[in-house]
Amino acid sequence: MRRVGIIAAGESKFGARVGMEYEELFVEAFLEAMGQVDNLESKDIQEAFVGSLAFGGSQLGNMSALVVDSVNLIGIPASRVENACGSSGYALRYAIMSIASGINDIVIAGGVEKMQDISKATRLYWFGVAGDIKWERLSGMTFPGNYALMATRHMKEFGTKKEALSSVAVKNHDFASRNPKAQFQRKITLEQAMNAPIVAYPLNIYDCCPITDGASCVILCDLEIAKKYTDTPIEIVGFGAGTDHLALYQRESITRIDAAVKASKMAFKMANLQPKDIEVAEVHDCFTIAEILAYEDIGFCKKGDGGKMILDGETTIHGRIPVNTGGGLKAKGHPIGATGTAQIYEIFKQLRGEHENQVHDATIGLTHNVGGTGSACTVTILRRV
Amino acid sequence: MRRVGIIAAGESKFGARVGMEYEELFVEAFLEAMGQVDNLESKDIQEAFVGSLAFGGSQLGNMSALVVDSVNLIGIPASRVENACGSSGYALRYAIMSIASGINDIVIAGGVEKMQDISKATRLYWFGVAGDIKWERLSGMTFPGNYALMATRHMKEFGTKKEALSSVAVKNHDFASRNPKAQFQRKITLEQAMNAPIVAYPLNIYDCCPITDGASCVILCDLEIAKKYTDTPIEIVGFGAGTDHLALYQRESITRIDAAVKASKMAFKMANLQPKDIEVAEVHDCFTIAEILAYEDIGFCKKGDGGKMILDGETTIHGRIPVNTGGGLKAKGHPIGATGTAQIYEIFKQLRGEHENQVHDATIGLTHNVGGTGSACTVTILRRV
Repeated sequence: MRRVGIIAAGESKFGARVGMEYEELFVEAFLEAMGQVDNLESKDIQEAFVGSLAFGGSQLGNMSALVVDSVNLIGIPASRVENACGSSGYALRYAIMSIASGINDIVIAGGVEKMQDISKATRLYWFGVAGDIKWERLSGMTFPGNYALMATRHMKEFGTKKEALSSVAVKNHDFASRNPKAQFQRKITLEQAMNAPIVAYPLNIYDCCPITDGASCVILCDLEIAKKYTDTPIEIVGFGAGTDHLALYQRESITRIDAAVKASKMAFKMANLQPKDIEVAEVHDCFTIAEILAYEDIGFCKKGDGGKMILDGETTIHGRIPVNTGGGLKAKGHPIGATGTAQIYEIFKQLRGEHENQVHDATIGLTHNVGGTGSACTVTILRRV
Repeated sequence: MRRVGIIAAGESKFGARVGMEYEELFVEAFLEAMGQVDNLESKDIQEAFVGSLAFGGSQLGNMSALVVDSVNLIGIPASRVENACGSSGYALRYAIMSIASGINDIVIAGGVEKMQDISKATRLYWFGVAGDIKWERLSGMTFPGNYALMATRHMKEFGTKKEALSSVAVKNHDFASRNPKAQFQRKITLEQAMNAPIVAYPLNIYDCCPITDGASCVILCDLEIAKKYTDTPIEIVGFGAGTDHLALYQRESITRIDAAVKASKMAFKMANLQPKDIEVAEVHDCFTIAEILAYEDIGFCKKGDGGKMILDGETTIHGRIPVNTGGGLKAKGHPIGATGTAQIYEIFKQLRGEHENQVHDATIGLTHNVGGTGSACTVTILRRV
């Protein structure tokens, strides 16, 4: 199997990008990436893997050709990859395999979502399509409601405090305050985070990610060929993926995301590394409880200790494993299909020493991208070469 | 790059499967495939690639977990791959690459669509999402209307007769009459085909594929390991893919599908074969004109001679290259996301000598799966080992 590296990564500004088409957001991300590799031309790119939920439905089917057309790549193989919020994590997986197999030398993987230009009521419907329609949505369950169930159960089983959930929000807003691309570039206090209006108990407005327009795009390359384009490629040393039952009621436990546990084990095994080797991580904090579950599912702490881990400051910039230094889905924003490769964007910058919230001399990083309430997950481990 | 083979292929009955969930249709296809390999167990399958447009929207996002759950494979990596009518052709592409890379040894690729259980007006909307929404659909263009434009232009440029279009329908209905899984198991006469009610001139009701419920599933395996499961694996010796502008007005020509031309060249180059080497083919005849374009785009005849090719009987069972021996999208049916791997199902049976419309001693076959009106295409070449 050939070794695969990332030679460039781009991301649009996240937020309410009113008046912009989703193709234009993708162009922003693509051009940032292309600007990092002087001697790479568009014609060198052989295939595109596009993550998107097609949120809002403006081009509900068959949107991948429009995306590659927007960056003048029409002709090359391209398809949409969709696993709800975990879409571009899987798009990246297929991109890696395409190079590892020898079919391609250079490809792009990315994602795009335009979420702000539909009514608030319709947005609620659209977020719902990431969960189980038949047994959850049609019974009146909302998407925040699902994660609220996971949170209350975690509180009951492990004594996790609301303060722990709120501390995730405080940390991620702090990181986002220094990220010029983040949707919310402002800090919040623990008191604000604790006392905001409830969405679905125990989750309040500060426990929930926002509705975000945005795109991301990374350029992947066979690691030998990568030398032609950059002195500092970032190698993908491990990547794993898994699935779980879509509806919560079918799962063995709702305080664990089995898809994430499986994806993590697969990625660590391939990389021949342990959770303790990770120096910086981007995890899928669509809700604050999801970040706490991620700590446990990846193996950064033992089961049930996720709340303690955030309260002890272990995931802040000076902690043992800084998490979501870009601001996370919570504060940087969550353009559904773009999130997986937007996480890669942050780790790529960290491992090249170019991050706004730089982790000193970080050489190994991890991303964790979840679909829906945990029905799918990809975990990717990256390393400075 | 490791060699990849298909060891089993299954398909549900196509048609109006009222009262069946899409998961149940997938189970039908999966069980047929599993029944062909006695010593393969579900736990040996490592990943799933699911093509679907999620037609009708019953589970619009995040449906791949439901599909793998239905066949008791929950836990393994799985994602939806969507390129409209070309979805499972691309799902197959990613499945092949996953084995070629060495990441997986055994995987499934398939597709499923449930199209009959929504109103006729809503179906029209849904077919529309396979074309360009902004510049075509919102101007009132229908999906048959797009192909009608391609047909009239072909008539003008090359003198193609309505009789040629109708002859495609007659041939494919004839093949379908002996296929117990086909939606339309009956022959039609040329007179019937010529004089049916118009949908969009020059296309009448017999020039258009039906609305179909159905699923398909193939099991792929590293070719060395395949020996463990079957004496007659079918090797994938070439596979290509391409894209083109989504809206017709942007294309250099509307009597050629560039994505198909590119995909074909890529597949033939990899297989080190020529169009004349193909002994049986399944091509994407969503409309009769599309089959004629396919002859030309693949290279079975020269540009403009597609009409002549069907009129001369070159693609009937006794012709030079029998095409759509399963009945094609036209008469077997077109469950959008399932079609790409349903084509593979037919060629797999042909190359094993097990087809209802067997081409004598066929050893090399081809499939051609188009997304939308040609914005995406995959071409796959298979060979008896």
